Amino acid sequence: MYDIGILGGGPAGLSAAINARVRSKTVAVISNDYRENPLYRSPHVPNYPGLPDVSGGELLERMHRQAEKLGAEFVPKRMISAMNMGNSWFLSAEDAVVEAKALILAGGVLRSDKFPGESERLGRGVSYCATCDGMLYRGKRVVVYGETEGAELEANYLKEIGCIVIYVSRRAESGRLKDTIPYLRIREMKIFGDGKVDYVLIDGEKVLCDGVFLLRPAVSPVDLIAGLAVENGHIRVNGAMETNLPGVYACGDCTGQPYQIARAAGQGQIAALHAVSWLDRQG
Amino acid sequence: MYDIGILGGGPAGLSAAINARVRSKTVAVISNDYRENPLYRSPHVPNYPGLPDVSGGELLERMHRQAEKLGAEFVPKRMISAMNMGNSWFLSAEDAVVEAKALILAGGVLRSDKFPGESERLGRGVSYCATCDGMLYRGKRVVVYGETEGAELEANYLKEIGCIVIYVSRRAESGRLKDTIPYLRIREMKIFGDGKVDYVLIDGEKVLCDGVFLLRPAVSPVDLIAGLAVENGHIRVNGAMETNLPGVYACGDCTGQPYQIARAAGQGQIAALHAVSWLDRQG
Repeated sequence: MYDIGILGGGPAGLSAAINARVRSKTVAVISNDYRENPLYRSPHVPNYPGLPDVSGGELLERMHRQAEKLGAEFVPKRMISAMNMGNSWFLSAEDAVVEAKALILAGGVLRSDKFPGESERLGRGVSYCATCDGMLYRGKRVVVYGETEGAELEANYLKEIGCIVIYVSRRAESGRLKDTIPYLRIREMKIFGDGKVDYVLIDGEKVLCDGVFLLRPAVSPVDLIAGLAVENGHIRVNGAMETNLPGVYACGDCTGQPYQIARAAGQGQIAALHAVSWLDRQG
Repeated sequence: MYDIGILGGGPAGLSAAINARVRSKTVAVISNDYRENPLYRSPHVPNYPGLPDVSGGELLERMHRQAEKLGAEFVPKRMISAMNMGNSWFLSAEDAVVEAKALILAGGVLRSDKFPGESERLGRGVSYCATCDGMLYRGKRVVVYGETEGAELEANYLKEIGCIVIYVSRRAESGRLKDTIPYLRIREMKIFGDGKVDYVLIDGEKVLCDGVFLLRPAVSPVDLIAGLAVENGHIRVNGAMETNLPGVYACGDCTGQPYQIARAAGQGQIAALHAVSWLDRQG
């Protein structure tokens, strides 16, 4: 059991991890590889105080190493679900499960890119996790939607265990996808089926399938955490970075604009220090 | 005329300066020498994201150089008064006057260390500025209260122009005070006089004088800026770091706890970016 589970490994999440560790709390950071953060490819960050003219990649490397050196533990996997157990949270990230007393949500800008038909069929043909649900689709046709190299590797895994896989993406292929898997660059997708998934419409074209794996880099915290209050497309927080749920904090781009690094790092610090106080009050 | 006047040159003020300059606004930072910031003497800062194990001095040096390199201008003097001119502010700092369209208050923890009898006699024997008012006290007895090397140098100046000076402080002498000026280490001081200053009581002992110079490192923004809303000892701000006054922002320790560097830098960024938007809206 960790004291704090941090969802997101950008500047907000890493700052939260650094500050929680300095206060001797145990910390698990669940996040995609930080090298997949768009900031990692930013050639020049002029306005992070103390590090002029650093690249986004170097800044992330520095923060990541600092958190790691202070003893933060990293779970480089995609979050799948978060379950409130009363006094703790069960966090599933692909095949890993992490239990934590407090949560800090630091997953970046909230995305509202659900596909039409997705929510209604979640668990009935729609899955967010190849490792968890792949075996249910052996010998069946599945559409895998992904945006990252990691998603391509998951599509390969589904192929290996015997699924009939089509990979679709809004991005260019990274090159890790098996040659034997068809790749479609798409604009839109709609999911159809009577109770379960029967087919998808991809840019108007009908593709029959039994399952749809939606392997986005992150599931929106709004979908992960029931009852989380959102305002104008951002997680609602007060000055202490408290959300409307006890023991759940949020920081960084998911809490609003401006989407900036120092702001994210500052909010990560505030969230961590208030989470630490909250944990201490729980005794 | 500057776009933004920043009061305070610690992490919050420097971050605001860096971010305002990156957005091409002209900036004047009014602050004591940053080497007088207590952070400057902190040997080890473990939790500033991106710069592990930096000293407080190095961190301030880095931020200061970065702001300077980006074109922020520094006025290394003590703030004396701020006057609202309708569409701008006149900021007096000792013998310098700076005009700015927007203000960012970043002066650190609000201090409520007014001496009894001080407010009532401001301008009638009580002065915050040796350079401004010294000549009025030639040949007269003055008590100078200070906490910094700079204040000792101002006491020397008063002596030079012919005042009869006693220097009092809550701190140990830094060694810059002239040998010919008596130095008293004090706990409390009360200011008395009928309409003007007649004497002070220093730890119960009566000292006759015509003037009292109170040379604190900074005048509290609450005393500088009429009508500024304060809540629980901190300047009241919203998530955009707006105070209750249009075009006036606050960031860092003056807005509340935790008193931490990343928080201050993050808030400085938020304050600057919102001040920039506000300026742009003024056209």
